[in-house]
Amino acid sequence: MVLSGLKKYCRPSAVVSMADSGGSTGRLRDEFGILPPGDVRQALVALSSEDKAPTLRRLFSYRFSRLGSLYGHNFGNLFLTALSDILGGEDRAIEEAGRILGVRGHVFPVTLDNIQLMAEYKDGEQVLGEGAIDDRKDSSNGGIKNLSLVPRARLFVGAKKALLDSDLIVIGPGDVFTSLLPNLLVEGVCGALSRTPARLVYVVNLVTKRGQTDGFSARDHLELVEKYLGREFDFVLVNRAPIPDEVWEHYESKGEFPVEDDLTGSRIVRGDFLSARIHRNLESDKARRSLIRHDPDKLARALLTLLAG
Amino acid sequence: MVLSGLKKYCRPSAVVSMADSGGSTGRLRDEFGILPPGDVRQALVALSSEDKAPTLRRLFSYRFSRLGSLYGHNFGNLFLTALSDILGGEDRAIEEAGRILGVRGHVFPVTLDNIQLMAEYKDGEQVLGEGAIDDRKDSSNGGIKNLSLVPRARLFVGAKKALLDSDLIVIGPGDVFTSLLPNLLVEGVCGALSRTPARLVYVVNLVTKRGQTDGFSARDHLELVEKYLGREFDFVLVNRAPIPDEVWEHYESKGEFPVEDDLTGSRIVRGDFLSARIHRNLESDKARRSLIRHDPDKLARALLTLLAG
Repeated sequence: MVLSGLKKYCRPSAVVSMADSGGSTGRLRDEFGILPPGDVRQALVALSSEDKAPTLRRLFSYRFSRLGSLYGHNFGNLFLTALSDILGGEDRAIEEAGRILGVRGHVFPVTLDNIQLMAEYKDGEQVLGEGAIDDRKDSSNGGIKNLSLVPRARLFVGAKKALLDSDLIVIGPGDVFTSLLPNLLVEGVCGALSRTPARLVYVVNLVTKRGQTDGFSARDHLELVEKYLGREFDFVLVNRAPIPDEVWEHYESKGEFPVEDDLTGSRIVRGDFLSARIHRNLESDKARRSLIRHDPDKLARALLTLLAG
Repeated sequence: MVLSGLKKYCRPSAVVSMADSGGSTGRLRDEFGILPPGDVRQALVALSSEDKAPTLRRLFSYRFSRLGSLYGHNFGNLFLTALSDILGGEDRAIEEAGRILGVRGHVFPVTLDNIQLMAEYKDGEQVLGEGAIDDRKDSSNGGIKNLSLVPRARLFVGAKKALLDSDLIVIGPGDVFTSLLPNLLVEGVCGALSRTPARLVYVVNLVTKRGQTDGFSARDHLELVEKYLGREFDFVLVNRAPIPDEVWEHYESKGEFPVEDDLTGSRIVRGDFLSARIHRNLESDKARRSLIRHDPDKLARALLTLLAG
């Protein structure tokens, strides 16, 4: 959402988690030993031009849905997998795929190390793999106490440069434990984020995530991310536009709830960041998708204001 | 070979057999119910620009070789499969893939009907499927007596237009029973080829094919194709350049032999059409590939001479 909004106004760099291990991505990691292509693919599509390569853009999001050997595989993932093999590296594959898709900006893997996410729950249980953590929906274990990467991961030089050379760095919205924090766990990321001249912005999620952020308020989200980050954000964006009642029933039935806004202070930026469109589940990338989203353009314009201010 | 040679001088149209059923193509046909993408893909690559989309060109010929769900699949086949689904038809997918690859000329499926090739051998045995026919290496059954398509296939309108609007139509080189004749079996093809103002040229193969054209001389090849065609070719191209001795050992060990030139008449055009390069088996599209090939440029220039003459 942030990338597709920002690309109209600037050339954003996406620094993408490499801890993904579910679905098509997980199978490709297992079979090819490559870095997870899923999040990279989504970032590439978000930054790609709607006019330059419209068919390739659609292909990149296409998922094979007929039963058989290709079932569940995403075409963009296969594209990145084949390209990594041809060019001899995921970093080169991402760069070349960006050229082919006419991407505005850049996509960088946060690390080139082959890592898995590990969650330790409050009852002592340990779960390895982003996919397995995501699948854990009950909260009987008291929630995630600690998150780490196995083995150690070092910051990719392209990503480091992007973090140090940017004017504005945006973290979120997104699944805190499985999408945002895995980036901060990579060695060198928090160091770069403490040294960068960029303004640092956190965008608070609209909805809690079952089994991970149950009952989390906006402040709980922020404190969690800042604990891993080791510094404070310069700005925090929170949506204040009301979410239609009809949407809540759907979320509540899945054990997910609106994130309560209990933030205070001058760095808090409130606004209507909500998409007017209600997103349906059809043809979506994951089996279950949120029905409300941030609006790319509203977010982008709020972010640009921070940059100007 | 013919297409990649001709594209430097004109904008050729390829009319491609839809009877292929082996390997990656066969699996995709079974699982997706689509037309076979393999030969289309090869024609697209042959006509694609080496400069415009070099990476996509390499991707199109890439084969997944790691064990797992993708093993043996060709990336270009998956590209065409996904694109057919997105655009709602193989003809549109081929057209769009041609645009994306910067193809010079056009590629047309000979038919949009979902067909299989059927061979009846002299001992009465029947074999269904191009892949199965190709796998039949012994000649104890006396060779193929009759070839047909199951069910009936009608000529695709785009292919028909190409056949009627061309200045020169080239048939061969290629496997006679499994690549050339399946085109002639499509209803409307021989009619169009008898009405077309184009000069009709046959290019004789360099080597016999085990289990299919064992012991066939150049005249045997020509007579077989003309039997199905129902008319005579205007010109017949035969290579007269000597083939290196070292190459023959390899072929003989596989039961394949040079095609003997026993042709006579003024329509026979002899020349050096041989590639100076000896093609190796590595990273080739099929498990077994010929080591000698026609030379694209020598063929193309000979063909253009016929057009001018």
